[in-house]
Amino acid sequence: MFEAHFQTFEEPESGVALTARLKAFREELLRRQLSGFVIPRADQQQNEYVAPSEERLAWLTGFTGSAGLAIVLNLKAAVFVDGRYTLQAAKQVDGKAWSIEPLVEPPPEKWLAEHLGAGDRLGFDPWLHTTAAAERLAATCAKVGAELVAVDSNPVDAVWTERPAPPLGRVAIHGPQFAGETEADKLGRIRAEIARLGVEALVVSDSHAVAWTFNIRGADVSHTPLPLSYALVPRDGRPTIFIDHRKLSNSARDHLEQNADVREPEALTTALTGLAERGVSIALDQATAADALNRLITSAGGKPVRGADPVSLLKAVKNATEIKGTQTAHRRDAVALARFLAWIDREAPSGALTEIDTVEALETFRRDTGALKDVSFPTIAGTGANGAIVHYRVTRKTNRRIVAGDLLLIDSGAQYQDGTTDVTRTIAIGEPTPEMRDRFTRVLRGHIAIATAVFPDGTTGAQLDSLARQFLWQAGVDFDHGTGHGVGSYLSVHEGPARISKLGTTPLKRGMILSNEPGYYKTDAFGIRIENLELVVATEIEGADKPMNAFETLTLAPIDRRLIDLAMLSKQELIWLNDYHARVRREVRPLLDEATRVWLDAATQPLALA
Amino acid sequence: MFEAHFQTFEEPESGVALTARLKAFREELLRRQLSGFVIPRADQQQNEYVAPSEERLAWLTGFTGSAGLAIVLNLKAAVFVDGRYTLQAAKQVDGKAWSIEPLVEPPPEKWLAEHLGAGDRLGFDPWLHTTAAAERLAATCAKVGAELVAVDSNPVDAVWTERPAPPLGRVAIHGPQFAGETEADKLGRIRAEIARLGVEALVVSDSHAVAWTFNIRGADVSHTPLPLSYALVPRDGRPTIFIDHRKLSNSARDHLEQNADVREPEALTTALTGLAERGVSIALDQATAADALNRLITSAGGKPVRGADPVSLLKAVKNATEIKGTQTAHRRDAVALARFLAWIDREAPSGALTEIDTVEALETFRRDTGALKDVSFPTIAGTGANGAIVHYRVTRKTNRRIVAGDLLLIDSGAQYQDGTTDVTRTIAIGEPTPEMRDRFTRVLRGHIAIATAVFPDGTTGAQLDSLARQFLWQAGVDFDHGTGHGVGSYLSVHEGPARISKLGTTPLKRGMILSNEPGYYKTDAFGIRIENLELVVATEIEGADKPMNAFETLTLAPIDRRLIDLAMLSKQELIWLNDYHARVRREVRPLLDEATRVWLDAATQPLALA
Repeated sequence: MFEAHFQTFEEPESGVALTARLKAFREELLRRQLSGFVIPRADQQQNEYVAPSEERLAWLTGFTGSAGLAIVLNLKAAVFVDGRYTLQAAKQVDGKAWSIEPLVEPPPEKWLAEHLGAGDRLGFDPWLHTTAAAERLAATCAKVGAELVAVDSNPVDAVWTERPAPPLGRVAIHGPQFAGETEADKLGRIRAEIARLGVEALVVSDSHAVAWTFNIRGADVSHTPLPLSYALVPRDGRPTIFIDHRKLSNSARDHLEQNADVREPEALTTALTGLAERGVSIALDQATAADALNRLITSAGGKPVRGADPVSLLKAVKNATEIKGTQTAHRRDAVALARFLAWIDREAPSGALTEIDTVEALETFRRDTGALKDVSFPTIAGTGANGAIVHYRVTRKTNRRIVAGDLLLIDSGAQYQDGTTDVTRTIAIGEPTPEMRDRFTRVLRGHIAIATAVFPDGTTGAQLDSLARQFLWQAGVDFDHGTGHGVGSYLSVHEGPARISKLGTTPLKRGMILSNEPGYYKTDAFGIRIENLELVVATEIEGADKPMNAFETLTLAPIDRRLIDLAMLSKQELIWLNDYHARVRREVRPLLDEATRVWLDAATQPLALA
Repeated sequence: MFEAHFQTFEEPESGVALTARLKAFREELLRRQLSGFVIPRADQQQNEYVAPSEERLAWLTGFTGSAGLAIVLNLKAAVFVDGRYTLQAAKQVDGKAWSIEPLVEPPPEKWLAEHLGAGDRLGFDPWLHTTAAAERLAATCAKVGAELVAVDSNPVDAVWTERPAPPLGRVAIHGPQFAGETEADKLGRIRAEIARLGVEALVVSDSHAVAWTFNIRGADVSHTPLPLSYALVPRDGRPTIFIDHRKLSNSARDHLEQNADVREPEALTTALTGLAERGVSIALDQATAADALNRLITSAGGKPVRGADPVSLLKAVKNATEIKGTQTAHRRDAVALARFLAWIDREAPSGALTEIDTVEALETFRRDTGALKDVSFPTIAGTGANGAIVHYRVTRKTNRRIVAGDLLLIDSGAQYQDGTTDVTRTIAIGEPTPEMRDRFTRVLRGHIAIATAVFPDGTTGAQLDSLARQFLWQAGVDFDHGTGHGVGSYLSVHEGPARISKLGTTPLKRGMILSNEPGYYKTDAFGIRIENLELVVATEIEGADKPMNAFETLTLAPIDRRLIDLAMLSKQELIWLNDYHARVRREVRPLLDEATRVWLDAATQPLALA
């Protein structure tokens, strides 16, 4: 059978070890005369995927979710998680030592205000919090008469004896055939933004932005080819990249040194101090810059200017080379997807497959392309009730057999050098119920409404979000996540600043790639999601008053026709579906083996109006 | 023929008088040692309609638009208007004395920064600006080294020798049969909001809010039954209303004194000073409170807390009595509308009618109901190219004859004691072009998309706005205004805080009334708008996961069937249209004279799918 390289299915550790760790940690706090400490699930750059050396929250509490926070006080300790992780945290965390509290509403500061007393000294590591987060902690401490103490070294690290070394993933050059724009040209555009901000320099504290600017990729975290690093870009003069020299081959170093000085990560503080001592304004990315950087600039006499990272918007707009690359990547990915979907249709009826089998098979089909660098995130493969868990990740314990009557939801993606993919399909196993078909068709209509939307240049994702929900709303249901997120170019599969969501206030620009993924989740029963990636393109309309945009679908995989209630589709919607399937057949069929061709022909047969 | 009482069609004054006024004003500035002065189109409460005594901008500059600002410096003077008033301002304002500048992008502060010098003293009347606006002026002055001076008396008034007296419109009691909730109950709910804000008192600086709270109406400005007044509501204890005693009959005074002390407007500053001197926090409505109030509280040692007026949201949610009232008002208004639309169809083909004729006729039909208090705003009656001017208001000079081939756009409304109406219809005169029918049908489809929308409780107007635009976007066109505004209950026809617009961040609550008015405007050719008022109601859906809302249409007037391209409508859209027309016939027909019945029967005939 298949075997996955990039994804494991193990349960994390728990039990006795965790009890000892909390005890040791409290003793360390005592030694430092701290009444408590805040441990976020974060690295120095607020990355989505963090290196094992940064998994302090998991090491101390046992909780392994991708978002969370712990606060340890002398007598109380709490783990804060959002709604999707409440159940998981309750299983992973020792309920006698920790209470599980909400991460968002109310915020942890409320709990803190109730349990912190006057005169208490609450510690935090300023490298692991943004300034905004640190300010919220400081305000809470001030309210109750406690003191917020920025520590020089993290007390978790002091007791974490077997803490892994920081990663030293090899840096690769992201060549012009993938990047499509030279580092010098990108730096020119960044300098124009720096001038526009009226500052002396920009701290690039987001490794994704460093990677994009200097056309490099790395291997420091899972699922994203991230070279952990910083850059300091002055308005005039040569930028500096701060990166561990052990990650650099001679050619990578030569590549970087064409446009920048290359120094060790530790040199960032000195460089920044030197600049700040001249009293100048320095721009910081409010989303990723550690509060430590803000403090450093301020204490050296400089003026930190916090705001949106200007590189983020430049990076989000893909150039012609990147667009051609992602189109190639999507055709390649489509071969793996077709083989996978054909395999499911062939094997699932036996009742022998499990969720893990599907994850392993899909990864194997993608590895068979010969171009897979990694999966772009751990595959979400949920059958039956597991499909209703929006951020489900299968483990050996939760692994479920796929049986007749199930809907199987598979959300997965690949990292190829020429592009990043992200696709969700929902597959009927056996005969679906009328309710399943009704809900699937409503999700599909919302998906089509986004795919076929035409909108003025400058329209935001917030303005489009409801188009994906309208048909679900008519049935009194909805989905509790955004409709779409930005996607990187061989970078993060979740990339800002644009998104399709009621919070998506960034105008959609031509060249941006966004996911289109409405869904529906019936707790303890089934989950549905249909996700394609969409490219924002100009569209010419006869008689138009203004420049208009539309989406061009990148993802090429059949949508399960067995789940569609044809009576609910409009003529235009049916035409879209048949056209999409014809395009999948046209573009993907020539790349397939004969058996998969037979399956694809059947799966993409045009449907007739009911 | 007909004659309008509430709307005039005169051009404002211009010429020699204005030149003399500007000269006298500059001399007054000199006497006060001011280098310049800012004259907004505003009264003390940022009202949409202001009393003649507050028309300082029009008196000084000649510009009579509903939004604008003038800045007079020693050598330069400018009038700032938004896009809809650029042409009008150029006609009304003396181009030799004033330059016409944009009001919004860039803001007037940019012009100010370029023309103000170091050491200059720029005056402003703190009663006519919000604190936010005053802060923007202050920041600009600081930037160029000038000083912003808050004057004690307005220098325009010093030279405006024939300035009208402030209005003394009679206050009427808005009885329980219209208000549906006692003043005491409303005050109870307001006090709960004051406690929630954690302040000692709330300054009610919006006369609409005073009117709503104390169940009174007034007659101080056109088109809105506004009793200009203030109230001070302490968290505990008896509120005070500040209102000119000459507006109060004995019964009105008795009514008010049941729940409040009644004092003269001048007493507000003393009362507020007394409260502020105790060092307490006092809430101010950021949208309507004059900067003078903010300064007064601060200088007396109090703490102004600026934010959204809590009364605004309470007022926006109509109770059962108000809803029943508006339904009655809309049926009454529908009679006038049906008679009017029948009259247009009968008279327009002769080619003898003008825009003013239609305004006068419509007002007369409304007066014939015996219940009309005022029109709720000056009727917009634009035929042909005038229809493309979104905020067009006909005068004797612009008045246009209605001819075959025109589209006639009529946007109008009525103030009845039981409800406020606002309705737009677009009428084909003779045979419309295919382009007109295409655009009209797209506008209609957007209108229907809003009218039939179902959405989760808590959804904002911003989330719905694009539903109204999607079909226009598909043709590369759009409309440059919001889709809908809130509407008061025998109060302002434009009422916050909810609206259907990309800026509408207030969740729509059951009981709110909003307009649904998508449009399309082809410059120099024609304008289209279809507007009904909609009530937010709960809707029960079998199998719903959460509480859902929908709109119930209040307006009852035929939509011109001659302008619809049936081939473009979906089956559901056609069903909505036929159902709506059947409802109009059912509810309005019994109230009509025989001739109008014949017209209505024809105008509401069901259409069959093409």
